[in-house]
Amino acid sequence: MKIEERLQKLREQMAERNLAAYIVPTEDFHNSEYVGDYFKAREYLSGFTGSAGTLLVCRKEAFLWTDGRYFLQAQQQLAQSTIELMKSGQPGVPALEEYLAEHLKDGDRVGFDGRTVTKAFVVKLQDKTADKQITFYSREDLADLVWTDRPALSAEPVWELEEAFAGLSREEKLDKVREKMQAQKADALLLTALDEIAWLLNLRGNDVHHTPVFLAYMLLTKTEAVLCVQEKILSAEIRDKLKKAGVSTLPYEQIEELVCGLQTGQKLWVDGRRVNYRLLQAIPEGVGQMDAPSPVERMKAVKTAAEMEHLRKAHVKDGVAVSRFMRYLKTHVGKERITELGAAQVLDGFRQQMEGYLGPSFDPIIAYGAHGAIVHYAATKESDVEMKPEGLCLADTGGHYKDGTTDITRTIALGELSAQEKRDYTLVLKGHLRLGAAKFLEGVCGQNLDCLAREPLWENGLDYNHGTGHGVGFLLSVHEGPQNFRWRIGKDADCVPLEEGMVISNEPGLYVTGKFGIRHENLVLCRKGEQNDFGQFMYLETLTMAPFDKDAIEVTLLNSQERDWLNGYHKKVYETLSPYMTKEEQEWLQKATAAV
Amino acid sequence: MKIEERLQKLREQMAERNLAAYIVPTEDFHNSEYVGDYFKAREYLSGFTGSAGTLLVCRKEAFLWTDGRYFLQAQQQLAQSTIELMKSGQPGVPALEEYLAEHLKDGDRVGFDGRTVTKAFVVKLQDKTADKQITFYSREDLADLVWTDRPALSAEPVWELEEAFAGLSREEKLDKVREKMQAQKADALLLTALDEIAWLLNLRGNDVHHTPVFLAYMLLTKTEAVLCVQEKILSAEIRDKLKKAGVSTLPYEQIEELVCGLQTGQKLWVDGRRVNYRLLQAIPEGVGQMDAPSPVERMKAVKTAAEMEHLRKAHVKDGVAVSRFMRYLKTHVGKERITELGAAQVLDGFRQQMEGYLGPSFDPIIAYGAHGAIVHYAATKESDVEMKPEGLCLADTGGHYKDGTTDITRTIALGELSAQEKRDYTLVLKGHLRLGAAKFLEGVCGQNLDCLAREPLWENGLDYNHGTGHGVGFLLSVHEGPQNFRWRIGKDADCVPLEEGMVISNEPGLYVTGKFGIRHENLVLCRKGEQNDFGQFMYLETLTMAPFDKDAIEVTLLNSQERDWLNGYHKKVYETLSPYMTKEEQEWLQKATAAV
Repeated sequence: MKIEERLQKLREQMAERNLAAYIVPTEDFHNSEYVGDYFKAREYLSGFTGSAGTLLVCRKEAFLWTDGRYFLQAQQQLAQSTIELMKSGQPGVPALEEYLAEHLKDGDRVGFDGRTVTKAFVVKLQDKTADKQITFYSREDLADLVWTDRPALSAEPVWELEEAFAGLSREEKLDKVREKMQAQKADALLLTALDEIAWLLNLRGNDVHHTPVFLAYMLLTKTEAVLCVQEKILSAEIRDKLKKAGVSTLPYEQIEELVCGLQTGQKLWVDGRRVNYRLLQAIPEGVGQMDAPSPVERMKAVKTAAEMEHLRKAHVKDGVAVSRFMRYLKTHVGKERITELGAAQVLDGFRQQMEGYLGPSFDPIIAYGAHGAIVHYAATKESDVEMKPEGLCLADTGGHYKDGTTDITRTIALGELSAQEKRDYTLVLKGHLRLGAAKFLEGVCGQNLDCLAREPLWENGLDYNHGTGHGVGFLLSVHEGPQNFRWRIGKDADCVPLEEGMVISNEPGLYVTGKFGIRHENLVLCRKGEQNDFGQFMYLETLTMAPFDKDAIEVTLLNSQERDWLNGYHKKVYETLSPYMTKEEQEWLQKATAAV
Repeated sequence: MKIEERLQKLREQMAERNLAAYIVPTEDFHNSEYVGDYFKAREYLSGFTGSAGTLLVCRKEAFLWTDGRYFLQAQQQLAQSTIELMKSGQPGVPALEEYLAEHLKDGDRVGFDGRTVTKAFVVKLQDKTADKQITFYSREDLADLVWTDRPALSAEPVWELEEAFAGLSREEKLDKVREKMQAQKADALLLTALDEIAWLLNLRGNDVHHTPVFLAYMLLTKTEAVLCVQEKILSAEIRDKLKKAGVSTLPYEQIEELVCGLQTGQKLWVDGRRVNYRLLQAIPEGVGQMDAPSPVERMKAVKTAAEMEHLRKAHVKDGVAVSRFMRYLKTHVGKERITELGAAQVLDGFRQQMEGYLGPSFDPIIAYGAHGAIVHYAATKESDVEMKPEGLCLADTGGHYKDGTTDITRTIALGELSAQEKRDYTLVLKGHLRLGAAKFLEGVCGQNLDCLAREPLWENGLDYNHGTGHGVGFLLSVHEGPQNFRWRIGKDADCVPLEEGMVISNEPGLYVTGKFGIRHENLVLCRKGEQNDFGQFMYLETLTMAPFDKDAIEVTLLNSQERDWLNGYHKKVYETLSPYMTKEEQEWLQKATAAV
């Protein structure tokens, strides 16, 4: 069925319900960043495969909003359809709610599956369309009526993350969360974010693409903890352990009933950014709502000592695999046929040799030449190209290990480079090194530091249209909050101080459409440093261990401080990785990390 | 009368009214940063002369809260009294409202003059003390009953700032403000900030220390504009011009009545951060309140083309005076007796030779040696010291010219320096130069850029306990918002994008208690630069023109980029100032600005 047919069928369903517009977001019922196949209705209806975007189907037109990371990809993927691309945040492009406010008629009806949107989304919609008598229809998933071969809801087995890896038992974690509830005088806490539930219970699963979480909701009170989950995914052993920790279970769908059962006068803590609209609608009138970030978010972001120790191990393994891959690529390209997809398989093969490797932490981006300029490019059979011994290959990949989650980008010179490629590679590297070397006072947010990475580019009138860094979970989602490196300080922005134990990516880039893309990414661990009269200083411990390809560096553009940072890092990379390498690999790494 | 007697008399008045505590803030009725002598009740009652601080007088104890700029000064000035210093923001130090929440008893009564505090202040007080049955008594100024020789309310003549300087007529400004009111559907706008009223009406006065504003309130509706002002300060001519622009006048005190007269159903725009509590209390019940930053604040911050052009002229004049002063100081010290106060007079004398000079824009800080470590040091007869041909002299001064307001800090080597002095001088200079050279995208806030100035210090475990920069008015307050360079991103923080036309100071520093202080300050004007695919780039045009004392620079600590920035700036300083100098001065300046 072509996209147009799918939209046509959706429009028939819309017409039966007298809907002027139907919104299909990317989200699952948990506002997860990546979603299981069951939830990919937006992709099914639009053909756009990116990880962010919202489809709006009107009676005649259809539109897809997505952000800067996906402009190129969406343009290509929508080219076959009549869906118009709306570039979010670009001058003159209205937001979805603004578009609706302008084009809806008085009394129009707008539909969406209430489980796939947040309260914030609906509030924004209501605010913008307040002048017109718009009504919302949110109780039905129309995509389900169109999507005949929809995959079943995932129900993969849940497994336990031992306390030695987590650093805290689930009982200790439940206690800590209840302390936070107590402090806020909340009687109940509704958890809907899958990574928060997995973290809290020291459990992992496999229901979401490349994310070891499982479909679940949780309602926590002072004395009770109810996990709503597809019961078949829990083994008897895990069920037992949960029971011991005071966690009972109910079927996945019964969360709505559970919420309906809250008592008048109780105060319920919900995270309005995460909880889906339908669940909010289920809260009885007399129940007080406290809308604030879930207490689990920050706890999960601040890694335990055990998590930190294991993360370092994960990054050594990952570094060995990535270095091997770099060597392979640089020495084999041009001599044998290597395509983007093939290279990704090679790298995954190296990772699979590592103890405790569980799989990729996201779809690998191996992007050669001009593909590198498509920020979240993922090679398909159709787009796959053979690499030649020239130009740049951008490799942004990561793995889940029992020891934690990695995410690394190296941009690799496969042969001759243009002067522009070398200059741009080096400018991005300057910013990466500068941010990585940052020392700062406790209380500083990622928004304060982002410009350290951008300064060398801004100075030259250049920029990259994405954040400089995101938080990374421990064997959870490769993107997590609340910490980040970004510069925009909006009203809704998460500006949180960087705390010891937070893991963040440092990944500035530069993208020259039609030519090449450059990104340098290490994960850093925020640490406490010197404390003196001025306060508590913090620094960033680099977790990622793999060389930056020196063949692409224009050394004259580095100042002596930057050279020292690079050489210091490379020295550490060699010392850390070489014990796990063959003699030939060691020789290669020694050259690859020799001082510039 | 000694401080203790004054407090005793205040406590008698408190006892008569059964007050457990009485709060004396620094503010006048307009929440001005600097205040006229009439309003210096906190200074009268505590002996502390700093520009920020709040006195709390309890039945037995008394406390003074002030911020990091004033810790040393307050410590010295409070030493004679029983008033305890509360260092705001330091670990373990409760905020005033927290202190009250802890120490007040149920049913206690707390007094303050409602005209000297803001709504935000009272709300915070109420929130924190909500558990106890605290009442507030705000209708009386108890200090007035104690302060027998209180100066009269200032009533200096108002004068007109010609349109050639302002760039917009008062009619145009009133139109623009009414457009903003229209957009917010506000029927009335209450203006209480003195610099906003002066800006809006293209008038200036002399009622506040070193700030050319006059005591006034304004109430603006779609059709009317009423200025509440001491009528004698307006000439017939100005009164006429105001009338022509649709501005009528009423006596200063009648603002309360005017506000009382607002009609039910009207929507009044007030700036809750500025308007005093008593005026808010005067708003009738049925009047809708919209609490948002006054529209004048941002308009005033974004300088007109005429203002920018005049500012450049003011800074040339100021630069000639300051350079002359630097030459004088460096060549005369040790040969004749020069004290801090004497030096300030010399500098003011040089400024007075300049056309259009109206007077200092704040109390000059000429701080020699260890005095430099007292961030807002102002020499008194008691503290004044003679300078020797060694060490550093920190000179932070500024002037009001018809062409605008200046604010400049130079740290001047008077002879031999220690290695620490040179290193620290250079580290601060690196940060100053780096921030000054920043190029950034439109939308970036001062909070994003602050760390550029701090990075060289943070790297070495150093910091300064003040913001890196503040906005500067055009022949108005030397400190204005909303723009700034700071790193703290709080809930109440003003994070506003830097816009073309905003003037901000760039003034990192370093203070070594008992030894020396260093600060390098230029004013910069935010400008639009290159526009390309990445967006609109912005840069900072340096307005201030005077050399940085190269004798204090440890050149080996500068990288080549920093040397280029310094040499480029110095070249411009020479080219700009030398035409206004004598031959001897030119020779000196040439050496002072020669490339390093």
